[in-house]
Amino acid sequence: MPIEQARRYMEAALDLARQAAAAGEVPVGAIVVKDGEIIGHGGNRPIAGHDPTAHAEIVAMREAAAKLDTDRLIGCDLWVTLEPCAMCAGAIAHARIARLYYGASDPKGGAIEHGPRLFEQPTVHHRPEVYSGICEDAAADLLKKFFSARR
Amino acid sequence: MPIEQARRYMEAALDLARQAAAAGEVPVGAIVVKDGEIIGHGGNRPIAGHDPTAHAEIVAMREAAAKLDTDRLIGCDLWVTLEPCAMCAGAIAHARIARLYYGASDPKGGAIEHGPRLFEQPTVHHRPEVYSGICEDAAADLLKKFFSARR
Repeated sequence: MPIEQARRYMEAALDLARQAAAAGEVPVGAIVVKDGEIIGHGGNRPIAGHDPTAHAEIVAMREAAAKLDTDRLIGCDLWVTLEPCAMCAGAIAHARIARLYYGASDPKGGAIEHGPRLFEQPTVHHRPEVYSGICEDAAADLLKKFFSARR
Repeated sequence: MPIEQARRYMEAALDLARQAAAAGEVPVGAIVVKDGEIIGHGGNRPIAGHDPTAHAEIVAMREAAAKLDTDRLIGCDLWVTLEPCAMCAGAIAHARIARLYYGASDPKGGAIEHGPRLFEQPTVHHRPEVYSGICEDAAADLLKKFFSARR
């Protein structure tokens, strides 16, 4: 995939992260793409949704699965602005996501290249291809600004 | 808690697991209890729900959080018939579940005493108290019968 196309997809996820920030949620956004089409959109919304599981990735994957009438997102890619946590990494495996693209790393809560490194665990049932660092600075800046404004 | 009371809670989760099996889903059930009252019920339903995240624990915690109008299940306990996977263990941490009670161990997909052992990871933000082995045989038998009938 040309880098410009990759940036366009991550920019769509960043838009959802900005909307989350405007709503007072931690700014993380995600989209699910199948055959070039965006079929799932998620902004982080646990507070507004009264739902501890409503991370951007989960919201986007649930929308995509409902749209496809299935629980397996075969051939689908997930784009998310931040390294997924263990909950979301587990959901990505259950959903059989083909490729995971993320922006900023998350040493404190990430579960891909940090902590449990879930896709390196022998008990994980599915491993997507993983690509990181796309629009990393924009994604990290959003989070930094959000948290510094709250201090 | 007297063991008879513990068995009654787990029996409620087992009922939900049996209903899941009757619907053709992997038989796992869960409840959320606050101050002695069951405020969340979940049977495993990814297939019927077209939702890769619809494990029993997630369904039960989402119901409880919606009922309490919050994303944090402070002071709530989760009872589930099978050792939670990484996705569900992550959700349990996000929800701030106080105590986790589970029935059967799951060496293939469990993430509490197997695989990533999520609550032993330094990056996990919350660790519930964990109690296992309650009605273990009943929970394991349900799963064994379900999978042997499908072979």
